[in-house]
Amino acid sequence: MLSEFTLIDHYFARRAREHTRRAALGIGDDCALIAPAPGEMLAVSTDMLVEGRHFLPDVDPHALGHKTLAVNLSDLAAMGAKPLGFTLAFALPKPREDWLAAFSAGLFELADLHDCELVGGDTTAGPLNLCITVFGSVRQDVALRRDTAQPGDDVWISGTPGDARAGLAVLRNDWPQMPVDAADAAYFRRALEYPQPRVALGLALAGVARAALDVSDGLAGDLRHILERSRVGAAINVDALPISPALARLPRELQVQCALAGGDDYELCFTAAQARRDDVEAAAQQAGVRVTRIGTITSPQGGIGANQDARPAIAWHDAAGAPLNLTLQGFDHFHAD
Amino acid sequence: MLSEFTLIDHYFARRAREHTRRAALGIGDDCALIAPAPGEMLAVSTDMLVEGRHFLPDVDPHALGHKTLAVNLSDLAAMGAKPLGFTLAFALPKPREDWLAAFSAGLFELADLHDCELVGGDTTAGPLNLCITVFGSVRQDVALRRDTAQPGDDVWISGTPGDARAGLAVLRNDWPQMPVDAADAAYFRRALEYPQPRVALGLALAGVARAALDVSDGLAGDLRHILERSRVGAAINVDALPISPALARLPRELQVQCALAGGDDYELCFTAAQARRDDVEAAAQQAGVRVTRIGTITSPQGGIGANQDARPAIAWHDAAGAPLNLTLQGFDHFHAD
Repeated sequence: MLSEFTLIDHYFARRAREHTRRAALGIGDDCALIAPAPGEMLAVSTDMLVEGRHFLPDVDPHALGHKTLAVNLSDLAAMGAKPLGFTLAFALPKPREDWLAAFSAGLFELADLHDCELVGGDTTAGPLNLCITVFGSVRQDVALRRDTAQPGDDVWISGTPGDARAGLAVLRNDWPQMPVDAADAAYFRRALEYPQPRVALGLALAGVARAALDVSDGLAGDLRHILERSRVGAAINVDALPISPALARLPRELQVQCALAGGDDYELCFTAAQARRDDVEAAAQQAGVRVTRIGTITSPQGGIGANQDARPAIAWHDAAGAPLNLTLQGFDHFHAD
Repeated sequence: MLSEFTLIDHYFARRAREHTRRAALGIGDDCALIAPAPGEMLAVSTDMLVEGRHFLPDVDPHALGHKTLAVNLSDLAAMGAKPLGFTLAFALPKPREDWLAAFSAGLFELADLHDCELVGGDTTAGPLNLCITVFGSVRQDVALRRDTAQPGDDVWISGTPGDARAGLAVLRNDWPQMPVDAADAAYFRRALEYPQPRVALGLALAGVARAALDVSDGLAGDLRHILERSRVGAAINVDALPISPALARLPRELQVQCALAGGDDYELCFTAAQARRDDVEAAAQQAGVRVTRIGTITSPQGGIGANQDARPAIAWHDAAGAPLNLTLQGFDHFHAD
């Protein structure tokens, strides 16, 4: 029988007490007490990860600990918020010490890296399910929203999207006809299992970029969320997509599919005024993350007053400006919700 | 296939937009932005509910919506915090419209009652699992903690604990030999399925009571959490336990077992200085909730320097002061973690 108190205390509460005590009151009381810095808002996001849907049953628990927190920190990054703390609720079929030890190690290594404190939790018996709610601090006037893109803005992407999707293909043997050498396979798996939330980049972009989100479901689909909420369109240069050397060794069509429709990248897609290009590059350099300009925000098709329910258009083109007709629908990726 | 966007929008986001917009930014962006009132801390608590463990598979979804939020609001109440908002993450085997309609109705009726806004969420396919993180606002100096009870304090309980455990017995037919009439059975079920978080009482007690928690796992077990964290003992008058008229129609031994070892009551157990008795009664009257004095906080057995790992003692006695030897171990209740 799973006991909340012994389990939490051994792997989580004791470890949490070693953290800097930012929370006035943490695990062990009814609530944790936290506060954003004076003049700042608290940014809050929640994500639930389910076995078979967000990770494979035989996932390395250390990687799972990392990723469970990483996908939440990525939401803070996309807001330009500084991580403060998180709550962890999880259901486990039965408590396995080796599993918990590895899971908590992966979780706390990333938490420590971002100075993000475990402030509360709940454990229960049940099918494996992980739910994290993360808290950050951000000034409301520089928060990176989704509804603030403007026609003429550049569209940027961090890192090299598509690698995580290739990692899933390697794990599931999706492409049996496709030779992937061992070093590339390891690189792709790491992209899938240990995504790095772009926290430093998000902080550096706050006040520089206009709209932003993190790419969890694929660049093409997620960019549409910015377009919908900002009521704009976009023209994207497919030849400008940043492709990793490993992904570049796969057929070109697969590169584009992975980069545009693959999930689980957790890169930042953002827009910024053309006049801020130098500032964007400086922010990226400060954060140590590559950013690439891939397109432009356009006026909504049909202009003001047009049917607002219409699917916001992304016009794809190549480096020469010739239109491309991409079919991205139905390209299965792992993280579908 | 479950689509996050259509599902959330139909039953949750649209409904959330009708709420007062306390959050500067809510569902639809990477994070919600919220802030406690100036000078206040944010109180945060998270709870996960799993089918078969916290509720029966055939539970009324309206009641489940109520209870999922109620158990979280109860944590705020136990802190003396004013509800502000919550996030909801849930996994569903498949989206059933009638189920979602009833669940969301039960959830939002209680949310509206306490002016608590849905600020973010996540939905996914998977075994039924509900995870809420709730946010409230409280002044740090009046927050009702668990580690602040002092010898000489009165021990108080709100409401009539034990009714929820009797409700579970009715649902599961635990006591086939015991006649429970239909009106009592309905009363017990309502206590189990629609617990009322004592938010108004918690707010009124902030600055009046010393230590507090909410009773989810049974009064005897939960009181021990206050005793452990405050390093004190307690003497409890079993004859003073407030028993509802319905529970009073069951055998006396069952009354005591339900009241002390039954889970899912979500009443507040708290301590207060004897000099504050009038203030406690006034707070209860203001909140419209009955409170009952059931005992006294005592010095820890062995005094300062004694083995702090020793199980903190509750000395049970009757109205005449004669010691009682209660066996509460092994009395099965529903909410065991």
